[in-house]
Amino acid sequence: MSRREFLKRAGVGAALGVAAAPSIAQTPPTVRWRLQTSWPKSLDTTHGGVEAMARRVGVITEGKFEIRVMAAGELVPGNQVFDAVAGGTFEATHTLSTFFIGKNPAFTFDSGIPFGLNARQQAAWFNWGGGAELLRDVFKPYGLINFPCGNTGVQMGGWYRKEIKTVQDLKGLKMRIGGIGGSILSKLGVTAQQLPPGDIYAALEKGTIDAAEFIGPHDDEKLGLNKVAKFYYYPGWWEGSAQNTMLVNLKAWEALPKAFQEALECAAREQDTMMTASYDAKNPIALKKLVGAGTQLRAFPKAVMDACYKASEETMAELSAKSADFKKIHEQWTKFRDDQNLWFRVAENTLDSYRYAASGAAAAAKK
Amino acid sequence: MSRREFLKRAGVGAALGVAAAPSIAQTPPTVRWRLQTSWPKSLDTTHGGVEAMARRVGVITEGKFEIRVMAAGELVPGNQVFDAVAGGTFEATHTLSTFFIGKNPAFTFDSGIPFGLNARQQAAWFNWGGGAELLRDVFKPYGLINFPCGNTGVQMGGWYRKEIKTVQDLKGLKMRIGGIGGSILSKLGVTAQQLPPGDIYAALEKGTIDAAEFIGPHDDEKLGLNKVAKFYYYPGWWEGSAQNTMLVNLKAWEALPKAFQEALECAAREQDTMMTASYDAKNPIALKKLVGAGTQLRAFPKAVMDACYKASEETMAELSAKSADFKKIHEQWTKFRDDQNLWFRVAENTLDSYRYAASGAAAAAKK
Repeated sequence: MSRREFLKRAGVGAALGVAAAPSIAQTPPTVRWRLQTSWPKSLDTTHGGVEAMARRVGVITEGKFEIRVMAAGELVPGNQVFDAVAGGTFEATHTLSTFFIGKNPAFTFDSGIPFGLNARQQAAWFNWGGGAELLRDVFKPYGLINFPCGNTGVQMGGWYRKEIKTVQDLKGLKMRIGGIGGSILSKLGVTAQQLPPGDIYAALEKGTIDAAEFIGPHDDEKLGLNKVAKFYYYPGWWEGSAQNTMLVNLKAWEALPKAFQEALECAAREQDTMMTASYDAKNPIALKKLVGAGTQLRAFPKAVMDACYKASEETMAELSAKSADFKKIHEQWTKFRDDQNLWFRVAENTLDSYRYAASGAAAAAKK
Repeated sequence: MSRREFLKRAGVGAALGVAAAPSIAQTPPTVRWRLQTSWPKSLDTTHGGVEAMARRVGVITEGKFEIRVMAAGELVPGNQVFDAVAGGTFEATHTLSTFFIGKNPAFTFDSGIPFGLNARQQAAWFNWGGGAELLRDVFKPYGLINFPCGNTGVQMGGWYRKEIKTVQDLKGLKMRIGGIGGSILSKLGVTAQQLPPGDIYAALEKGTIDAAEFIGPHDDEKLGLNKVAKFYYYPGWWEGSAQNTMLVNLKAWEALPKAFQEALECAAREQDTMMTASYDAKNPIALKKLVGAGTQLRAFPKAVMDACYKASEETMAELSAKSADFKKIHEQWTKFRDDQNLWFRVAENTLDSYRYAASGAAAAAKK
């Protein structure tokens, strides 16, 4: 967003002057930040949500705290945002902490764990279950502080040129998948590859890869992956949900006046709801379009899920053995997860499952 | 705008309160509001969340917008907040819109529909699915504007002195349950009664009632209901989730400077996440305590759920025939719900259900 546009949207100047009480001064920004995301502008839900957050901070601070939002590549490549913010090149980023597990595997808990917490449970753990304290201790030595800011929910399991009917079908599969999901699948014979989003289509088309996971229907459709792979699998078990995070330079954070700190924290948490809600509203529309255009929707067979679950548990144990930070969080997190699973199985999942079965029966009856 | 002009535009006169009160910041407040909830202070999650929201608004406006939060009964009884805010006695309340369906049955869509949207789906509908526009059109003639502010998620089905094994067991059951849930259950022979929370324990103990629903483990435990009823049923199907709402006097809202409007909206939406997360973190702890103390946890049998589902659909049709507002929203909402059910059945519910089954198997193996 340009400065002129920012001021226009923030309502600084004439628009605010009309409505404002006299105590509201039309002062120029006292703090100006730059925030570069890890996303292209085309990710309207995620990148767009960050723009909405910055606009909100501008309005509620009466234009005094201005955050200029930039897309991946405008200052540094999308995968270099961690170092750029830690080093003070710019003040903040919006990213997935799991991109940076090479630095510390414990960052995974900030994004999502295979077969781990769903979006609501992640919010419960972070905000009320000790997650914020544990994670911030891990980010602090890097000079960063983290704020949850949008969750995609459970993602899709990706696009496949051939059906996955058995665990054997994973052997030798060349798949675009990063992070811990890739490590786990390699235990089952998958050759995991990292590719930037823009390169997935061509790689699938040429057959350089056999499969690719990205996000969910709304974002996947934009890449046109349905045109080069027929089978669309679910669920993306490599995260119980994918939590996006705003990482902020700790010194810049500590230098903010209290009112600006709280405005930013509040606006980030608002987007935690708004981005998820936006995905939830958009994904079914895209999914219907994809299926209408010939995409074959498939659930991973139970035997495949079981093998992946077992491999995930092994990977968690290996990471705990390797990293003290990971082990410490994993132990606390596991207890919290077990309690969440106990409770969500009772009221929440029972009613959800009943509703979905009833809804499926009604849809079948209409046919 | 001068303070005097502000008050004139606000149209609620001296009730708006520019009286002397200590401020949290150096500058005196420009705007002072009173917000009375429908809750006792003992509901730490709900009433406490409203206090956190008011504190947040105070800090981010540097003390210029002060919201004084009061509990049910401090100004008016908890069930009179609607009229008090509409009439300008105070500026805002935090309540369940379903308490006021006697005025307009369409308010139900602001709280939750039997077998309806879960918490995440409700947020998607309100914020991105046309819900805000539809609901605000319904509240506007009453001089009110609504903001979602905290969702309990799926509630429990309540406390029963005897087991519910068949649909026949509902016949003649005297149950404390209000709103649409009570109407639906009365089709199945239940005598639905409304009782204030503080009276439930005594009524169950004396046998004046046979069953009572309240909220969920964390809140129910505080009332001690486990001591007077042995069976704790799930799920509370009479709402897909229970959405709490902040209702604001429309003139007071329109008179706010833009920065204060956005600070309040942002802080309310933050609590939409925070209250739900708080319930999710607290409920499993309370549930374990209750079960440890002898409570018998039971799922409603499928035949009971099916009968309730059928009665709910009939009730929705009756309300649509009776109220044009209800019909208009119900038609749009039904399409949105069907899409949500389609999508959540795919990735979200498949992974959740797999995780819970795996978690249950692991817990059983430990015994």
